[in-house]
This record gives sequence, structure tokens and C-alpha cells, in this order.
Amino acid sequence: MSPFGFTLTATDGAARVGRITTVHGPITTPAFMPVGTAGTVKAMLPASVRDTGAEIILGNTYHLMLRPGAEQVAAFGGLHQFMNWPGPILTDSGGYQVMSLAGLRKIDEDGVTFRSHLDGSRHALSPERSIAIQHHLDATITMVLDECTPFPASHEEAGESMRRSMRWAARSKAAFAERPGYGLFGIVQGGVYPDLRRESVTRLAEIGFDGYAVGGLAVGEGQAVMLETLDATVPAMPADRPRYLMGVGKPADLVAAVARGIDMFDCVLPTRSGRNGQAFTRRGALNLRNSQHKTDAAPLDADCACPACRDHSRAYLHHLIKAKEILGAMLMTWHNLQYYQDLMRDLRAATAAGRLEKYIDDFQRDQGLDGDGHRSDTAPN
Amino acid sequence: MSPFGFTLTATDGAARVGRITTVHGPITTPAFMPVGTAGTVKAMLPASVRDTGAEIILGNTYHLMLRPGAEQVAAFGGLHQFMNWPGPILTDSGGYQVMSLAGLRKIDEDGVTFRSHLDGSRHALSPERSIAIQHHLDATITMVLDECTPFPASHEEAGESMRRSMRWAARSKAAFAERPGYGLFGIVQGGVYPDLRRESVTRLAEIGFDGYAVGGLAVGEGQAVMLETLDATVPAMPADRPRYLMGVGKPADLVAAVARGIDMFDCVLPTRSGRNGQAFTRRGALNLRNSQHKTDAAPLDADCACPACRDHSRAYLHHLIKAKEILGAMLMTWHNLQYYQDLMRDLRAATAAGRLEKYIDDFQRDQGLDGDGHRSDTAPN
Repeated sequence: MSPFGFTLTATDGAARVGRITTVHGPITTPAFMPVGTAGTVKAMLPASVRDTGAEIILGNTYHLMLRPGAEQVAAFGGLHQFMNWPGPILTDSGGYQVMSLAGLRKIDEDGVTFRSHLDGSRHALSPERSIAIQHHLDATITMVLDECTPFPASHEEAGESMRRSMRWAARSKAAFAERPGYGLFGIVQGGVYPDLRRESVTRLAEIGFDGYAVGGLAVGEGQAVMLETLDATVPAMPADRPRYLMGVGKPADLVAAVARGIDMFDCVLPTRSGRNGQAFTRRGALNLRNSQHKTDAAPLDADCACPACRDHSRAYLHHLIKAKEILGAMLMTWHNLQYYQDLMRDLRAATAAGRLEKYIDDFQRDQGLDGDGHRSDTAPN
Repeated sequence: MSPFGFTLTATDGAARVGRITTVHGPITTPAFMPVGTAGTVKAMLPASVRDTGAEIILGNTYHLMLRPGAEQVAAFGGLHQFMNWPGPILTDSGGYQVMSLAGLRKIDEDGVTFRSHLDGSRHALSPERSIAIQHHLDATITMVLDECTPFPASHEEAGESMRRSMRWAARSKAAFAERPGYGLFGIVQGGVYPDLRRESVTRLAEIGFDGYAVGGLAVGEGQAVMLETLDATVPAMPADRPRYLMGVGKPADLVAAVARGIDMFDCVLPTRSGRNGQAFTRRGALNLRNSQHKTDAAPLDADCACPACRDHSRAYLHHLIKAKEILGAMLMTWHNLQYYQDLMRDLRAATAAGRLEKYIDDFQRDQGLDGDGHRSDTAPN
């Protein structure tokens, strides 16, 4: 069985094209991971997710530990078998969702206790328990438990929070069962403070991980601050390991982060926005709910080969969304995931060809336009 | 362009196998038509509906006239183009849904006026308006406007209601624009009264239609009375035209009606029940919500080739349904539509082979069993 590996195949400035090898198959980077919260990428058959070009998806420890339960998933041979996704799966630690349960959770040095949003039952998540759950899920890539430092936070608050996350990272590493082709990623915290971010990178690198994530961004700080933080963080991260920007983001965020050397992304935006009628395209975002689409026979995105664009009109999609039809959620989700995968493919190709700067210029020019060449009705960022 | 035709290719007792030729392609009968209420068979891509074996679907005039509007559909070249279903589509007259709007509708000799369930706006539906709307939709098979006689109804009430429906049928025929490959069906009414049913058939046959439907059943009278009414009605119906039992039904209803010479069916049961977690199988109905399925690694139906049965366990389907995931609705709908199409295929094969009686004996024996060989947790009828 091959080890968990990462090979760079091309670079262009800070941007990289690479290949992660795992026990469940390879991942070409930069990669966008569709979010499969509760054992399903919402409104998509697994085969359709794969058809968009996705090689890896994300599963949520918090949701799966509560329902159907980690041991239940383990009894079915892991999450891959349970949901019929044979490719790589990255699971989060559960921390982010638990920390979001305002009023329902308590954090201390050992970990976090919380009440289920489903039935109010009490649960505890420690670094060790999070790793154990992710083992039950048979995660290809396991994430350490961390605290997503709230925004805004003072330098002192962000520092204390980051240092506890680093202690949790060491405990996570100790609890992780090394197996060929499986990986464990650490998570850089430190808020918007460059010195804390670099301190966090140093501590994680001392522990040693198969990949390094940037956490605690896209939490309200805005794109400019997020990119400044990446500028201060990414160059300090080990170059020979995958770099994963968690929970990001809009297409323009992905483009900017790839240019800064990020290799992996996840975000609910394409799936959640799709269910709400928002479509992402090369020419900006469109809200298909808007009445201007009611009589529009054009495809959502003439450049896209997904079933929504290939087989249907904007008017039909508008109708489905207005009528709250499940098919509307299905088609819009498919399109957005296809767009995100196509975007990653294009970013890889541009990087490999040494023309990323030109690609980004064109991308930024086009993003302000909708499919008709007009200004988009939804701000792209 | 070929005419709207119907050819019998085999019979076994009263049961028939036939072929309807239409401008939008052929339909092999007996046929089950999935219901595409608002321009979509809920939770299914059109190509997936076709993959189950369905050759014709049903569209609802009531829903489509309110949203997106018949003229809007016409502007897109008809319902086939609008929803990307190139095959035959039968549209109902809108009458059944309008009559169900208790307190919101008023019926008189001219037709029915009603308020939209969407926004309370006032609308009128007459035989002529219903036909015009179905022309806008480009229905392959158009249904006359009728009154679905409530159950129970006295002989006098059922007779008056039926005779008004017959006057509406004549007006519908007069309003219908004959075009090669398009058909207009009359609807037999008369409640549970054999003499009224036969009178209705006689009146419709005098007007002359391309097919004849049996309406006003499956409205609470129970299977036994429904079958008695079919026994009194179907033999009187023209043998050289398709016979369509509207709004029926459970698998056992379909089997019994095919044996009595019915050629076409529609029902929301497979799609609606699927969204609610109920699955139909050769061995009876199953409710995947039930906790007994939580740890069951077996497929929903080992005899079925649909994605739900081919790629997933009962435990996973149970999880999706409990978590209210869209994928649960998608997979369960697909399975039920596949089961209904497989059932029709088997009924056609048994009829063509002259072994329908044996098939029905086996079917009835199996229906009381679930996939484990136990009594089903949902009564099959």
C-alpha cells in the first residue's frame, strides 16, 4: 500500500499543481472538496459528484457522530462504504460545528462538551475522541481538533486560543493511528495576527503532519484581511505538504488563494447556494429566483456541460426554484459543483502552463459580468 | 406524421398488450405514467425517469396554468421542450385538482371558478379553456374536463354529475384541434353505479374519442368496490381504444386492473410515498423510516437494478430519510418508479405469454412478504 504522499508537478509563482496519493486513490491539487455533511453531498448521487470531476469529498464528524453514529458507520466498513463514495474522504474534527453551538457548548482544556442540536443529548469531544470518531469513519484525511478562534479576537485571546489548539494538535497526533495511505492534518490558527499564525505553523511543523490547514478564516474578516493573513501565513508553511484553506469560499477567494499557494478547499457555498437558487458562473453569480429569468430561454451557463446547462433553460430553472421543486435543488447543486471543479481544473492548467497571472486577470474581468454580459445581479464578492 | 393509433399485440383473458403511436413516440401498454405535476417528476432528472422504462408521463393542467402559466409554457414550445421530456405527455384537464379545492371553487354548467392555492387569484376553467390550456402545453394526450363525482354519492347525484360531464365531454371534443399523432380521451363517470357507468360509456362512444378513461375511482370506495365497478364498466368500453384508469394506484390495484383490460395508469403513490420513505417491492411495501432498517446492510430490493438498490443499503436509505436528506427522496423515488415500470413490464410479458393468471397468483403470494420473507410492515392494500 502506498504511503500518504504529496508530489508537486508544477508551480507558477506561489501557485502549485500537485498530486496527493492516498489509500483511497489520488487527488490532483489544487482541489475543491464538495461538502457531504451527513454522509451525502446534498441533492447529488455519489456518481454525479464524481462526474463533476471531484476526487475527494468532505464529511462532518459532528453530524455523523450524532446521526447515524460513528460506530454505526464503522459497522458498515466506514463512511466510504456507507455512502458509496470509494474515493478519498477528508473529515473535519467536529470542532467547528460544536463551537458554533452558542449556549449549548462549554470548552475547557480537555475539550468541549455540548448538547446535540437534534435531541439535546449531551456529548463530549476531546482531541482523542475526535480522532477515534474519524477512525471509525475511516477518514482518508483526518483533521486535528482545534478551536476556530472567533472574529474579532484580541491578540491575547487569539494567542491563548491558538496555543490551546496547538496542545490539542499534539494530543491528536499522539492519538492518531498511522496507517499507510492515511493522513493527519494540523490546523494553523492565530486569528488575523501574523506573528501568531507563524508561531502556530512552527509548533505544528515541530509536531509533524501530513498536511497543514489554515483555519479560522472566512469567519467575517472579509476577503482583504483573509488574503493578508494568507500572505503572512502560507510562505511559512512547509512547502512539501498539502496546504488546505478550510471553509473557503467564493470563486474569487479560491482563485486568490491558489495564487498564494493553497492546494485544497472545502465550502458549502456551491451546494447551499445552489439549493437557494444562486448559480456561480465564469461571468459572475446569478440568482435564478429573480423574475428576469422567468422568460429567458438561454442556458444558465453556455460554457458549462452539466445537465442544468446542457438540458434546460434559465426559465425552467427559475420555475423549479419558485415552485420549490427538488429537481431545482438537484440541477443547481450539480451546476455549482461542476463550475467549482471546472474552475479548479482551469487553475491547475493555467498554473501548469505558467500563465496563471493572465488567467486571473481574465477571471477578474469576467466575474463582474453575468451570462448576458451585464453586471451580475449578485455581487461576486 | 403518423396518426394517433392503438394496436393490440396480445391478449390473455381480458388483459391486453398494445402499442399507442403518437407524434411524440410510441407507448407500450399496459403503461404506468409517472406524475410530473409542475413540469417535473419530483426528485428525478427527466433522463432518469426514462431510464426506469417510462415512455409517457403526466402533467397537471391545474398546477401548470397557475405556475409558470400555460402561455409561458407555450412560449417555450410546449411542455416537452420546457421540461426536456421529448416523449409523450398526457395532461389532465385540471378538473380533479380544482374540484378538490373545497371552499375555494364553484361549479356550474359552464365550468368551474376557483381561487389559486398559491396566491388566492381568481381563475375559471371551462371545457373549452381546459382544452386551450392543454393545447398551450402541447399535450400528446388531452383529457376532457369532467367532474370527479364525490364518493359517496346517491344514484341521482352521480347521474346528474355524470351527465354534466358528458355535456362537457362533447364541448371538449368540439374545442379540441385535431392534429396527426395527438389524441383526446373521454372520461367515464357514474360513481359506483353500473347502469350510470354504462350510460357514460355509451354517450362518450357516440361523441368518439381516441381513448377512454375511467374516472372517479380510488376516491375512498376501497379496492373491492373499485374492481366491481371496473367489472361493470370495462367490458362496455370500446376494445379498439386505450383504456386509462385515472389516479390508480397501489401495485395490487394495477395488477387487478390490467387483468380486467386496463391499458394505462397514473398515480402519485410511487413518487409521493418514496419521498416519505415508503418503498414498493415484489415482496410488499416497506417503510424505510422504521428503526428495524437502521442496521440492515441488505439492499432495499435485491431484485431491483435501480441506483438505490444497486449502490446502497437499507441502513443508508434509513439514515437519509431520518436526516431528511434530498438524496433520500431521490433514491426512494427512483426505486419506486423503477418498481412500477418493472411491474408493468412483467405484466406485459405475462400477458403476451398467456400466463397472466399464474403471474397474478405469484404476485399475490409475494405481496404479503417483505424483503426478508416476513410479513410486510405496511399493508400492501
